[in-house]
Amino acid sequence: MQRITILIHCEDQKSIIATVTNYIASIEGNITYLDQHVDADENVFFMRLECEFNAKDWDLTSIKSHFETHLANPFNMNWEIYSQDQKPRMALFISKYDHCLYDILGRYSAGELNLEIPLIISNHEDLRSVAERFEIPFEYVPFTKEIKAQGEQQQLDLLAKYDIDFVVLARYMQIITPRIIAAYKNKIINIHHSFLPAFPGAKPYHSAFKRGVKIIGATSHYVTEELDEGPIIEQDITRVSHSHSIEDFIMKGRDLERMVLARAIKLHAERKTIVYNNKTVVFA
Amino acid sequence: MQRITILIHCEDQKSIIATVTNYIASIEGNITYLDQHVDADENVFFMRLECEFNAKDWDLTSIKSHFETHLANPFNMNWEIYSQDQKPRMALFISKYDHCLYDILGRYSAGELNLEIPLIISNHEDLRSVAERFEIPFEYVPFTKEIKAQGEQQQLDLLAKYDIDFVVLARYMQIITPRIIAAYKNKIINIHHSFLPAFPGAKPYHSAFKRGVKIIGATSHYVTEELDEGPIIEQDITRVSHSHSIEDFIMKGRDLERMVLARAIKLHAERKTIVYNNKTVVFA
Amino acid sequence: MQRITILIHCEDQKSIIATVTNYIASIEGNITYLDQHVDADENVFFMRLECEFNAKDWDLTSIKSHFETHLANPFNMNWEIYSQDQKPRMALFISKYDHCLYDILGRYSAGELNLEIPLIISNHEDLRSVAERFEIPFEYVPFTKEIKAQGEQQQLDLLAKYDIDFVVLARYMQIITPRIIAAYKNKIINIHHSFLPAFPGAKPYHSAFKRGVKIIGATSHYVTEELDEGPIIEQDITRVSHSHSIEDFIMKGRDLERMVLARAIKLHAERKTIVYNNKTVVFA
Amino acid sequence: MQRITILIHCEDQKSIIATVTNYIASIEGNITYLDQHVDADENVFFMRLECEFNAKDWDLTSIKSHFETHLANPFNMNWEIYSQDQKPRMALFISKYDHCLYDILGRYSAGELNLEIPLIISNHEDLRSVAERFEIPFEYVPFTKEIKAQGEQQQLDLLAKYDIDFVVLARYMQIITPRIIAAYKNKIINIHHSFLPAFPGAKPYHSAFKRGVKIIGATSHYVTEELDEGPIIEQDITRVSHSHSIEDFIMKGRDLERMVLARAIKLHAERKTIVYNNKTVVFA
Repeated sequence: MQRITILIHCEDQKSIIATVTNYIASIEGNITYLDQHVDADENVFFMRLECEFNAKDWDLTSIKSHFETHLANPFNMNWEIYSQDQKPRMALFISKYDHCLYDILGRYSAGELNLEIPLIISNHEDLRSVAERFEIPFEYVPFTKEIKAQGEQQQLDLLAKYDIDFVVLARYMQIITPRIIAAYKNKIINIHHSFLPAFPGAKPYHSAFKRGVKIIGATSHYVTEELDEGPIIEQDITRVSHSHSIEDFIMKGRDLERMVLARAIKLHAERKTIVYNNKTVVFA
Repeated sequence: MQRITILIHCEDQKSIIATVTNYIASIEGNITYLDQHVDADENVFFMRLECEFNAKDWDLTSIKSHFETHLANPFNMNWEIYSQDQKPRMALFISKYDHCLYDILGRYSAGELNLEIPLIISNHEDLRSVAERFEIPFEYVPFTKEIKAQGEQQQLDLLAKYDIDFVVLARYMQIITPRIIAAYKNKIINIHHSFLPAFPGAKPYHSAFKRGVKIIGATSHYVTEELDEGPIIEQDITRVSHSHSIEDFIMKGRDLERMVLARAIKLHAERKTIVYNNKTVVFA
Repeated sequence: MQRITILIHCEDQKSIIATVTNYIASIEGNITYLDQHVDADENVFFMRLECEFNAKDWDLTSIKSHFETHLANPFNMNWEIYSQDQKPRMALFISKYDHCLYDILGRYSAGELNLEIPLIISNHEDLRSVAERFEIPFEYVPFTKEIKAQGEQQQLDLLAKYDIDFVVLARYMQIITPRIIAAYKNKIINIHHSFLPAFPGAKPYHSAFKRGVKIIGATSHYVTEELDEGPIIEQDITRVSHSHSIEDFIMKGRDLERMVLARAIKLHAERKTIVYNNKTVVFA
Repeated sequence: MQRITILIHCEDQKSIIATVTNYIASIEGNITYLDQHVDADENVFFMRLECEFNAKDWDLTSIKSHFETHLANPFNMNWEIYSQDQKPRMALFISKYDHCLYDILGRYSAGELNLEIPLIISNHEDLRSVAERFEIPFEYVPFTKEIKAQGEQQQLDLLAKYDIDFVVLARYMQIITPRIIAAYKNKIINIHHSFLPAFPGAKPYHSAFKRGVKIIGATSHYVTEELDEGPIIEQDITRVSHSHSIEDFIMKGRDLERMVLARAIKLHAERKTIVYNNKTVVFA
């Protein structure tokens, strides 16, 4: 059996679901998951569908070709069809914080993530030993304002060389350049240590402490050119009180960062997200 | 426009979704919501679908008749089609606890519940004044072991007289008889003050306190003959600590009971639940 | 037995706890609760203590006098001693939203709130019938920019006439004037329908929807002259997804508003909050 | 400065707090944390206190001796005084599941845990490479019914050899013998993959799935001779729905197990727990 995932979004029109499900029926496919969403304000239709069909009788390339001609084009769809056998290739960008790195590599080693990690890029040498401990290639790419163009090019070359599908910024402390953002549109995931839009920018735990909030949070989002303004994939929070110091906030926040980033990575890797209008549809 | 909700469950078979959505297309209907679920272990298919169509061109009675003949029977479906204009009629059974009662009547008065409350039945006179405050008919039906048959008959007569669709036990402290359970199968909702299956039966807060748990919960479920064993609709929990007394547990639990019961009522009234195999599918 | 609650904050100094607990010992009091907090950055000490003593042997007035002379003055304390028999008197300010009102009055009627509600003030007549249903005096005080001074005076007169200790804005849709804020410093509680500091000001659910957040929240805080900037008492959140419309956000938000405001009211009424530096210490 | 943590529990009596805080004052100590609890039903007093004093003027050994003679004995206290410089030594017991192991070792390597991990014991060789990756001594101790006495002795010898203070069962799949439980009373921490007391014993996720619960949980507790009946340290839950398979339950549960066990380890290592009456007082 061949198992595939189909993601669609397009203008809402009558008969889309019927047309798509008829097509699956025509290749004797079995729908194992279907979820759809209509954004009534914007009149946009979204669908995620998983199905399995007999790989002996039907070929994925010709299915894609047929789908494009007879379904995607008539409905003017944005669409993707993924084979579930094909694991996405993820690059990690890191700096000096190691807690998200340990968490991701631990999950990866424990077999929880359905993806490959062929590359870690860092602007510091500090965490090379962690990468080595988990036997992941580690590339040191210095990055400062002065050598931005050079760093950017090195990053792009490495992403190309390792055939990277998407990038995760695991507390990477440099900006990502517009050129890279454009090259990996909706494919760069960041973790920000506040419940956005509260406390964007630097030192959110300090700001949260000063404001006296009773909950702190973390937010994972796709990176866009506007800092901390990209489409949100996942958020979570934890309670704090007057009895917690800034150090406590930071320590509790590390747990949030780990969890929220891990969930966002899984959602993206399992092709459960669609970006539209600077928001995400997450078929979880 | 006529808006309807369709609930289906049946053996999983190919082409069900295509067939149903083709039918909606054939009546020029617009699907505004579709969610489906396949229980792979049991090979059962579940679907909830909302659509709207032109009431001038298509008549609900003939749609139901057509649906039964050409869709439900061939696929051997369990199915329901509800007009969204038709509000379900809910009866409340109460005893002496008033917190869930106040919460439900407050929400009802504030226009949050898309249902009618034509009847409150109690085995005590204590809360008559609350019912009167909200102008809901209150019927006193004494109920003890000795007069069980008489109480049961009175309850059944009142439910029939007021044309009740479903029953909510808002901390009603008597058992519901098998005859009533059979007459309102999967239509009687109870709130139990623990996260079932922990602490079934009487005095769950006392048991939770004694056991030293760090979370307490509440569970709303459909009533079956096995006490506290029916299909769970909704659960929630709150944290407790050593610093909380049993009285604190009870007070915190009241908030849980209110919230969990209110959510279960909404889910049921909006036809978002399907019961199968002593479990619920909740299309929330 | 006389039961009292003592709240203290002052510069952190050695021996404060020993001195206070020695004093309680000297009146043969039994400490039933003691919690303290030191703000290490600001070097401020906070304490909340509950104790009981024999009312025949010791008189509250002389205890207060002794406390002031021999403890509060030497340590330069901000302090309060409350008899637990004395219920605080709360005024509700409302406009047209009724969900928080129903929730508070339901809890009040169910005996969950250890306070008196002798007064409801509204700038609209719409909810008079709800107040009457619960037999609470309702005063209509029109309030617009044009008649601000007059409205303010009427409000102050009513608060004085009914001997009000603290005010709760249960989705009251007008600003509170600086004069009233000054007169009831740290005694006016508001509910804002977002997790502050995200989405201050008007229409936070609309802003949250537009931003595509995955959690929405509510915040209860003491009112200061800076809109939505006062000391936060309590916050909570709930998860949302792409499948929720603005109307869903608003409906889910109502539950948050109810719960968060109810908790803040209880904390304040039970003298569990101390305000310092635009933050709260909450001894919960 | 010498920083110490004092844990006390004893029969509730007047003047305990005053006596202890007077003593701290007498050694010119500064109390940086004090929390206490009275179990009113059992009439037991609990206190946790952190303070710092001048190590040049006061010596920890003589403080302990003085404390015992003049405070602990008169009040008949159970008590401990810990230097905060002295990190507890933790042994991990594991079998084949690696997710908690990776999480704990990642946190340990990231500097989040204030303890030493000098020893990992496993009844399987499978995870030796993980231990080696993090450079922790790994000891293979086979353990089956047939060789129980031998395995137990080997475990005890290793715990003694490595001077272990407390033991964490990170999904260790064998029972701990009564002799070891007695030797490490309230010092062996287990993680159970359900919200106890629901679903004790084997395969709790399968039982939870079958019951159709809407929340699943994990529980960390001290090990006693009664399986899954020991004092609960920490619990947490996550929501599930009909759409989740048993495999989803297990995957979501792994996150719970990681988090709950990590929190319990921190609480124990920071001497924030006191066990009494098969319950815990957790001064968090």
